[in-house]
Amino acid sequence: MSHQEQLPSAPQGATQAPADNFTGVAWVKMLVSAGNPTDCTVGDVTFEAGARNNWHSHPSGQILVVTAGSGYYQEQGQPARLLHPGEAVSIAPGVVHWHGATANGRFTHLAINPGASNGVADWGAPVTDEEYQAAHS
Amino acid sequence: MSHQEQLPSAPQGATQAPADNFTGVAWVKMLVSAGNPTDCTVGDVTFEAGARNNWHSHPSGQILVVTAGSGYYQEQGQPARLLHPGEAVSIAPGVVHWHGATANGRFTHLAINPGASNGVADWGAPVTDEEYQAAHS
Repeated sequence: MSHQEQLPSAPQGATQAPADNFTGVAWVKMLVSAGNPTDCTVGDVTFEAGARNNWHSHPSGQILVVTAGSGYYQEQGQPARLLHPGEAVSIAPGVVHWHGATANGRFTHLAINPGASNGVADWGAPVTDEEYQAAHS
Repeated sequence: MSHQEQLPSAPQGATQAPADNFTGVAWVKMLVSAGNPTDCTVGDVTFEAGARNNWHSHPSGQILVVTAGSGYYQEQGQPARLLHPGEAVSIAPGVVHWHGATANGRFTHLAINPGASNGVADWGAPVTDEEYQAAHS
């Protein structure tokens, strides 16, 4: 296997998530963008193994629907939950949380943001390696 | 093959969609139900071949995300669109439309309804066989 084949490659039509708000490599493909008449956006998000987003919250909340792989969802002060395909999480407005892959494989979910005109996310600090490793225990 | 094996069977965890608003057999599994803090619901909807819902609209609009099979989406006065996995449709509030399978196979999509507390759907007349067959032409 060449070095090139070991680098993660983008899912079709996806672009890399901004490094400011993510640890590791994640990909985002918007299926329904802001400014549509439902005021709701839908993104298809894939995290490579070990990748996660920063602690953050959403002004109007968010729904995650897992479509492939397994990964973590953790709200501040709560234990991390391991999510599997077909499972969904409803996140209340303002609740601080993170989500991402396990250390062992890719994780893909839809990210549904109602009320997108109120703002999509308020970003905080990265999830530290210590916090991330604790999710696996 | 016994007669029993020829009947369509429900996807895991799904219940049959109400006959009043559907032609043919469709299944609904709610992934995120009404009353959650995002005020947005997500249903996993499967139409058997030939099945479709009645003409209807949504007070706060709707987003469809196709997950398996191919099927039709038609707005009143517009030609039907054939949708494929990975495609999404944003439906404005009050726009009258229907969706469903082709005559040839199952069709599955997520149905995302923001603003569910405003009401989920206003149901109209069934899509006639003539209207349905015209979608295939």
